[in-house]
Amino acid sequence: MFRLDCQSEVARLVLDRPAARNAIPAAGWQELAGLVDEAGRSSARLLLLSGAGGSFCAGADLTDFPALQRDEAARTRFREGMRAALDRLRELAIPTIASIEGPCYGAGVALAMACDLRLAAASARFAITPAKFGISYPQQDVHRLVELVGPGQAARLLFTGLGIDAEEAVRIGLADLGPGEEAEGLVAAILANAAESLATLKRAIRLAAAGKRSDPEQDARFDALFGGGALARRLEAPRRK
Amino acid sequence: MFRLDCQSEVARLVLDRPAARNAIPAAGWQELAGLVDEAGRSSARLLLLSGAGGSFCAGADLTDFPALQRDEAARTRFREGMRAALDRLRELAIPTIASIEGPCYGAGVALAMACDLRLAAASARFAITPAKFGISYPQQDVHRLVELVGPGQAARLLFTGLGIDAEEAVRIGLADLGPGEEAEGLVAAILANAAESLATLKRAIRLAAAGKRSDPEQDARFDALFGGGALARRLEAPRRK
Amino acid sequence: MFRLDCQSEVARLVLDRPAARNAIPAAGWQELAGLVDEAGRSSARLLLLSGAGGSFCAGADLTDFPALQRDEAARTRFREGMRAALDRLRELAIPTIASIEGPCYGAGVALAMACDLRLAAASARFAITPAKFGISYPQQDVHRLVELVGPGQAARLLFTGLGIDAEEAVRIGLADLGPGEEAEGLVAAILANAAESLATLKRAIRLAAAGKRSDPEQDARFDALFGGGALARRLEAPRRK
Repeated sequence: MFRLDCQSEVARLVLDRPAARNAIPAAGWQELAGLVDEAGRSSARLLLLSGAGGSFCAGADLTDFPALQRDEAARTRFREGMRAALDRLRELAIPTIASIEGPCYGAGVALAMACDLRLAAASARFAITPAKFGISYPQQDVHRLVELVGPGQAARLLFTGLGIDAEEAVRIGLADLGPGEEAEGLVAAILANAAESLATLKRAIRLAAAGKRSDPEQDARFDALFGGGALARRLEAPRRK
Repeated sequence: MFRLDCQSEVARLVLDRPAARNAIPAAGWQELAGLVDEAGRSSARLLLLSGAGGSFCAGADLTDFPALQRDEAARTRFREGMRAALDRLRELAIPTIASIEGPCYGAGVALAMACDLRLAAASARFAITPAKFGISYPQQDVHRLVELVGPGQAARLLFTGLGIDAEEAVRIGLADLGPGEEAEGLVAAILANAAESLATLKRAIRLAAAGKRSDPEQDARFDALFGGGALARRLEAPRRK
Repeated sequence: MFRLDCQSEVARLVLDRPAARNAIPAAGWQELAGLVDEAGRSSARLLLLSGAGGSFCAGADLTDFPALQRDEAARTRFREGMRAALDRLRELAIPTIASIEGPCYGAGVALAMACDLRLAAASARFAITPAKFGISYPQQDVHRLVELVGPGQAARLLFTGLGIDAEEAVRIGLADLGPGEEAEGLVAAILANAAESLATLKRAIRLAAAGKRSDPEQDARFDALFGGGALARRLEAPRRK
């Protein structure tokens, strides 16, 4: 279902089931969690998530649903497996970017939202469809959706299940960057910056989104970075030129 | 002041005092609370709130204000009555949509914000005017405003009291859908979806907006809906065709 | 570094070091805190913050950084001094507006975010650059950034350090008003309103942004303003005409 290449500074994680528009089978979440851990152990400084064949992800694989209907324990395992994988992705210490082409539906939106940044290509199309199927959406993913688009647009997307295009996704905040931007340019801009800074800033954003306005550990990191080698090298750089 | 028709799947609640641009008298809030309860007891699956005669609501009726100046107990009753009605509307279990034409001012904005979704027609105009009158705005409604538009735009709207049009309201998040959209299309899209899903998703959004990232009851509902009849019927549907 | 004129209803606070594009030296934060206090003690009803010479603020002065590298105590003093000044500005009881022309970088963005409202001129350009220098950004300012633009755009700005123009700043919520607006028109609209209302509404927004949905003190103020002189004068005004 997934392919991971983390031989360079960029861990490239690809949903690779294009015949199913990269719909994720129930068993796929555990595979995803393992690959996210592998990327975290590698020397990659950034994770780029994308889909093969012009689709990002059509959501959870519907062919698993009849089995979930009949088996209560399987339903709980499904929810917990999806959660574990998405949380692992959100907690990765390096920056994560979802590069989205074509369909990004249902659990595919949850996957994109688990990244720090979402880049929507011109072909991207988003829909959150549980109400169409008579099911729900995990509380953590609704929370993240409300963080990104606010409670009004969250209601619109969740209640109607209707699709929106890349431009609309950028307008309401479901995507951060739209058709004019290239993933590789964004990646290069981030890689040019100091890894220590990126890790501390990512932690700061996560704490802030959780409502934390101050944090002694962040203060200590702030002071330490001002005394550290990354700043020293950057202050030296212009003199060397 | 209000008219309610809940004979169909859509409870239509109309502000019907067009000569006063649907300004709400102090006594109107209790009437509103009662009608919201009536809609909640009906078999309606969605509530659509609108104003008669090309206005949504010009706000609280100013002709009541001199009496409020003289009577401290009446002021407290006024605040509590308004709060009770708006909270009842926010807590309704079915989706609620404000369809906004013409003036939507002061307490009219609080009324629109108490709905899940706001649809602004081309004629819609919004202003939050307490500072113009030397009064304040209820904390709960400022909180909702900040949820929808952020603290910067909230400061702009509340400090200036100036009006904005439909396009600007959509841009900053005070309205969710603008002139290109029709209320009836939005209503139809929502009614096509499963009622069980809508109720659970509405609860999820409210919890998320209150900062809840996880909730055992939502987990239980998630698992239950995957085992439920609404999904079964939807999985059957394509085979029947 | 700063100039303050609070002889009129508008306290005009100007960053006045145009040769350095108004970059703030380490010692500047204490000066700023003192001037904010002075504005608070004056009879000014609004504070307007701007930069001399076509720049808002290029950030913290880099020439101080080598000294911070060598002196741990100085780093802590630097962080605490910046924090004290920015918090004092945020806590000022009167409305505060940042009028932004030209560069607004790094700590300059934190300064602009410490105001209630941000007005971006056509020449305004924003960038948050700590990751370029291998340092971090204070937790409080990351929190404010997430309040204004959400966690996705915060990640984009902080991780890349790239600049955005006025139009983009307005689009994502980093600025509230863009090139079409004039600071003096905004100031006049706010000054036309009741000072008692503005103070109470500013307090309401701050509480709401901190997650407070209700507050007994705000209820008491709401009731009191309905019985107060500002409303009385405004209800009288039309009759006098």
